[in-house]
Formats: sequence, structure tokens, C-alpha cells
Amino acid sequence: MSNPIRIGIAGLGTVGAGLIKIIQKNSNILEARAGKPIKIIAVSALSKSKDRGVDLTAYEWEDDPIALAKRDDIDVFVELIGGESGQAKKATEEAIKHGKHVVTANKAMLAIHGQELASAAENSGVNLRFEAAVAGGIPVIKTLTESLAGNNITRIMGVMNGTCNYILTRMEDTGLAYEEIFEEANQLGFLEADPNLDVGGIDAAHKLVLLSSIAYGTQVDFNGAILEGIGRITIEDIKAASEMGYRIKLLGVSSLSDSGLSQTMRPCLVPLTSPLAQLNGGTNMIIIEGDAVGQIVLRGAGAGEGPTASAVIADILDIARGINIPVFGQPANSLIKVPAISTSVENSFYLRLNLKDEAGILAKVSAALANAGISIDRIRQEGHEKDAAPVIIVTHPTDRDTLNKAISEIEETSAAIDPPVVLRIESV
Amino acid sequence: MSNPIRIGIAGLGTVGAGLIKIIQKNSNILEARAGKPIKIIAVSALSKSKDRGVDLTAYEWEDDPIALAKRDDIDVFVELIGGESGQAKKATEEAIKHGKHVVTANKAMLAIHGQELASAAENSGVNLRFEAAVAGGIPVIKTLTESLAGNNITRIMGVMNGTCNYILTRMEDTGLAYEEIFEEANQLGFLEADPNLDVGGIDAAHKLVLLSSIAYGTQVDFNGAILEGIGRITIEDIKAASEMGYRIKLLGVSSLSDSGLSQTMRPCLVPLTSPLAQLNGGTNMIIIEGDAVGQIVLRGAGAGEGPTASAVIADILDIARGINIPVFGQPANSLIKVPAISTSVENSFYLRLNLKDEAGILAKVSAALANAGISIDRIRQEGHEKDAAPVIIVTHPTDRDTLNKAISEIEETSAAIDPPVVLRIESV
Repeated sequence: MSNPIRIGIAGLGTVGAGLIKIIQKNSNILEARAGKPIKIIAVSALSKSKDRGVDLTAYEWEDDPIALAKRDDIDVFVELIGGESGQAKKATEEAIKHGKHVVTANKAMLAIHGQELASAAENSGVNLRFEAAVAGGIPVIKTLTESLAGNNITRIMGVMNGTCNYILTRMEDTGLAYEEIFEEANQLGFLEADPNLDVGGIDAAHKLVLLSSIAYGTQVDFNGAILEGIGRITIEDIKAASEMGYRIKLLGVSSLSDSGLSQTMRPCLVPLTSPLAQLNGGTNMIIIEGDAVGQIVLRGAGAGEGPTASAVIADILDIARGINIPVFGQPANSLIKVPAISTSVENSFYLRLNLKDEAGILAKVSAALANAGISIDRIRQEGHEKDAAPVIIVTHPTDRDTLNKAISEIEETSAAIDPPVVLRIESV
Repeated sequence: MSNPIRIGIAGLGTVGAGLIKIIQKNSNILEARAGKPIKIIAVSALSKSKDRGVDLTAYEWEDDPIALAKRDDIDVFVELIGGESGQAKKATEEAIKHGKHVVTANKAMLAIHGQELASAAENSGVNLRFEAAVAGGIPVIKTLTESLAGNNITRIMGVMNGTCNYILTRMEDTGLAYEEIFEEANQLGFLEADPNLDVGGIDAAHKLVLLSSIAYGTQVDFNGAILEGIGRITIEDIKAASEMGYRIKLLGVSSLSDSGLSQTMRPCLVPLTSPLAQLNGGTNMIIIEGDAVGQIVLRGAGAGEGPTASAVIADILDIARGINIPVFGQPANSLIKVPAISTSVENSFYLRLNLKDEAGILAKVSAALANAGISIDRIRQEGHEKDAAPVIIVTHPTDRDTLNKAISEIEETSAAIDPPVVLRIESV
């Protein structure tokens, strides 16, 4: 039997503890599959004394993750500290500098610093792997980087934030308002320390931009992504969508055209019959379309101890098996920089307008849409609230820029009390 | 740029021609991702003159696939000849003997000779890869072998024969009889030369046993699989299932327990709300359950030129990237031989009995079920045909062995005109 592959784990939260549990429990399976033992040498976290439900006595302890990253007796540094920069990034850089492979679940760090870290890893001849950073246990990074590598990827779509999906499905199930379910999710510990990472769509967009880079051979471009959170979705939107045969999901979509890369993370309406509509709670789904393969759908738990640890251990096993592929599937210095664009694909849109309850107001709105050449598929006004009349409009297919023009014109007329809620209707 | 990886392709049917098209069309992408050009050196097929819609003039021609397999100027032999043994197996063996990597889409060959071929490949230090052999473009081999390798896999389920799925969904859509849709599928070229490979469940079972080997670290055991085709499913079964909220699918299930390996490929009833029920036509789905990851669902086109070629090219790229993993995920000589068992999991069952139209017959059937301790959930008798009374019974959960005892007793009473149709009801 070969020498063991020696790992150091920094960060012993849910995923770190879960990883140690799998390595302890499945050690025979892992050794058979890796061709060598997977051996944890040392661990690091903020508190040494905290009970994590896992026996750490066999491992050395490091207070400082950077010291752990540099240890001579580890081959793989597992970064589970989290955070876009700070200790996580410093430790990753040190590990790479000292010739250690790095496995991370840190989507924020890679979405912002992925290009730089990938270059550093490739220059050092080490792996930097991140299956656990996107969609938990779903093997989407490997599927894109390896299984579909023969394809010209034409589109990626995905529901990749379990917390948002939990909030939206719970609102529909309970009929309760966003604020109440948000608080429930908070109590359950589903929200990040900064909840806007979840409900603002940032976390999901971090994931999407990593997938785009692999799919299209482009540099990771988080700043070019167009984000919109779920904070303005009301229970009325969910009910109206449902009555029309749709469900609201925070959906990421990316595609590359000659004019540039479009990456959007926005709440959308998807048909109730779509596989996307059937995702409940923390389940994630990624849909990948390629010129040869057609459409591939991957579904599974997008977070949690077991699923995320499963992805981390897969990366460790790949390294143990001697796999070394460029971080984003082709050398970092060959990834191209392309303009960020908003897609020109036409869709129908759902608009919720909170209009002043005055004569002629609806005529102004209709005129603004007509002026932009947008025709209305359905319109609905039910009930009044004080001096406001909530109106829901579904348009025929149009592009977003045209719609934005019409919305500007509506806002100029001061017909609307609040900025309109605009949701794309996807046909997948 | 590195030296090209040089390939020889034997068999230029749909997949072979599709593979050449992708390699020609996506050559830049492939080179960027593989780190070297993918170069077709030579091809082989039965007829040199046949028009395959693809330009072969740049490649050398070999009439004999075995001569192709031995060529000094190829690194990878792509076996797309098909067939359990014969030329496909001989050429594969010669390629391995001459130190060539082999990529194949040949599920029959591997299901029967997988253990022997894997040993040969590993002894020669070459890859033998077969992503295209199971579920077309769906990356299930890689997902099991690599992405979920940290898991103790607890169950695999899948709809993996597009032709059967086409026949069953078309029967439901059109209301036409099995024989008519079978003929339609035949006209469309969906059936294998020996249709029993498809409708008898053999092709799908070939795929299932390959997945089992990877998942459980067991030797490939096709003979241990329990097979049942779709040939006895009538339009009445499909209608009755639909009225009860189910759809009939040819479903493979495998699991390993202390007593052995259970592998079944049988038509089953699945709830209309199940993702499995929503598969139309040639779409395949695999569900993998592991102790860490929970449940992962993979869906995509299970056959066809593009999807299957996508899987072949993925294997070629892996070889170009220097990946070399044991054929079934751990060394062939470490795969264990376990007894074949039929699972002891309890399910409800759907029974269709064609009973003699005589007084007391139903009482005999009920008594036989009661004697075996099986209680009836629902029973339905509608209409008579000549001297026969078709009766549909849904049981409460029981195990298959118990049910088989009751069925034997029913058959001994000569109450039934034909052997009963017995379909498991799955709750996934």
C-alpha cells in the first residue's frame, strides 16, 4: 500500500466536523478507492475546547490556520474557514506557496480572487479544488470541468441557494409574509451572518460565476453579474404566480455570446411543471446545456454537513489519485476576459405595480408599455389598499432593456408609489 | 503545446460519426481543456464507402479493427463496434496488450467480461473507460467513481433504457397497445437488432450491473441480476396505474447488504409526482444514495449521437489529462465476489390476474394471499372477456418471496388463465 495522503483541516464548523466524521467512518472505503490511506494530521479552529461531536485527539492542533497551511507533514490543506479574504485567503496563499494542494468550500473567496489564486496554484503545480463551493454534494464542478468538457456549453441555469429556496417554498406553504419566514429561517440557523449574502442573491451569484468560468473559458467575473435578491417578493406575488401556473425561484442563468458574458441571479417565475418548480427547501438543481450532450440536470442537497463533506472528500480523493487539472478546466492564463452584458433573450415578464388610486393612472402605464412596443398578455387589479391599487401585468415576450425603458417612463409619470417588482418568466 | 493524443476509432455508426463531428467542430475547446490536441489518426468500420455525413479523408482507414487496435501511432483505441464478444472484445484485448488506452460504449461486453478486461487493463497500466456505456451523456460513471467516492453508497435506482421508456410513455399518450408501439419504435430505428435486449430489460441491466460494481466494490455480476421485461405490460395496466396515481417505468434498483447484492431490473409503478414519472421518451435518470451525500439525481438524454459522443470524448479528455483510475474505481483484484440475493425490502405490489370467470375463484385468490399473510389494499374487477375476468389487486407492503409463495398457490388452484402480472410499487 502506498504512503498515506496527509491532510490538514482549517475550520471545524459543520462541514469540517462532517468531513472528519466521514474520514473516520469510511476509512476502509476511502483507502480502497484512493489506493492509499487518507490521514488527517492536524486541524485548526478558533476554539480548541468546543465540543464538535467528533474525536480530535488523534490530530495535532494548530491555533493558527496559516501555521497549519505551512506544515511540512501535510500534502493537502483543506480550507473551511470561509470569508472572501482574511485568514482563509492568507492561509490558502501560504499553502500554495509551500507546495500544498488546497481543497476549499469557499465560494466567496474564489468568486472574487479566483483568477489570482488559480494562477498561483498552477504556477506552483498544485491543485486548487472547490467542488464543495457550489451546490453542496452535487458534482457540478466535476461535471462541467470533466464530464462535459467535450461540449461547447451554451447555457447554465440553477437554483443554488437553499435558504432562499426555503424561504420561498415556506411562504407558499404557509401563506406567511416574507418577514415572518425570514425570521423563522434565522431562528433555524439557515442564514449567513450577513443575511444579505443569502437573500440578496450574492451567495448564489458567487456560485454561478464559478460555473461560468469553467463553462466558457472566461475569467471569473463576479462584478459583471447582475443580482437581485428575494427581499421584495411578497406573499401576493407568490399567490398570483401560483394562480397563473408558476412558482417563484431565485434562478441563476449564464450564457456567452459574441458580445459578452451574461450572468444573472434573479427571482423568476418558472412553470409548476418544471423540474425547477419542484425543488423544496434546501434542494439545489443545476441545468447545463451543451452542443453535444443536450440538457443535463443535476439535483441534490445544496448544503449541510454530509453533502458538503462528500464534495470535499471527493476533491481529496482526486488529489490522492493523482488528478491534476487546471483550476477552471484550462490554464488560468488562457482564460479570456469578456465584457459583461445583459442577455438579449426575450422573455415574458411579470410586473407588480403599486399604482396611485387615481383616474387615468392605468392608462398612463398602458401607454408607457405601448410606447416601448410591449404588448400585455394579462392584467389584473384586485382590491385597493388605502390610496394604492396593486396591479399585476404579464407581458408578451420582450427584452429586458426595452422593458426597463417602459418602467422608467412609468416611474417618470409618478403613477407608481414604489418601484415596480419585475420578474422574468422562464419557460424551462 | 504538448504532443497530441492520438486516437483510433473502430465502429462508425451513430456514435462514431457523432464523435468525429464533435472532435472536428470543437477542436479548439478540446485542445484548451486537454492541454494538447486530440488527433484522430485512423478509423475502421465495415464499409469504407458508406456516407456517414462526416469527412473521413484526413484519417487512415483500417478494414480490420484489430489491426487498428495494434497501430503504433495511436494512444487511445475507441471501441464503438458493439456486441458482447467477437470483434469488439478481441480488438479491446489487443489494444490493452499493446499498451493502448481503451474507451468504449460497450455495456454488454463489460457486463459480461468486465472483470477480466479490467484486470487486463490494470495489469497493462492502461485506462479502460466506459462513461458512454451507461445512460448516454449523463456523467454517472464519473459521479459514482469519483464524485461520490467518499460515500458508502446505499442504493442506486435508474431508468436507463430509452426505448422501453419511449414505448411505455407512447402507450400512455396514445392509448395504443404494446404491439403497435413496439412496431412504431422498430420503424423509428429505436430497437436493437435483437429487440429483447431492449424490451427484455437486458440492456438496462447491463448498465445497472456496471454501476453496482463501482458503487459497492463488487465484481460485475450480470448473471446475478433479476430481469423482467416490459413485454407483458398492457394498455390496461398503464391506465389502471394512472388512475391510481402511478406511472409504469422499467426501473433498475441495486443495493448491497450483509447477505449479498440485490440487482433488479423490472417494470414498476412510481408515483406520478416522482421525478422518475416525469421522464419522457429517451430521457434517462439515475438516483444515487450515499451515507454522506444523501440523494443525488442525474437526468439527461440516455442515447443518441451527441450525448453518447459527449461521454466518449470526456473519457478521451480524461486520458489526455493523465487521469488513470482503476476501471471500477478500485483495483480489479480487490473487487469482492458476493452472493446474488433478491432484496428483502417490503413494497406494495400491483397484481393483474386473468381469472377464470367461475364462482368462488376470487375467494381462492383472496385465500391464497391471506394464507401468505398478505393483506389487500385495493381490488378491482371491471368487465369480462369471454370466460375471463381480469382482476387488479394492490397489496399492502410485503416482501417479494412471500408474494411469490401466494402466487404459486394461486397458480396451483388453476384460478388464473395466464401467469399474473406482478409490478412492484416504488415510493420514490
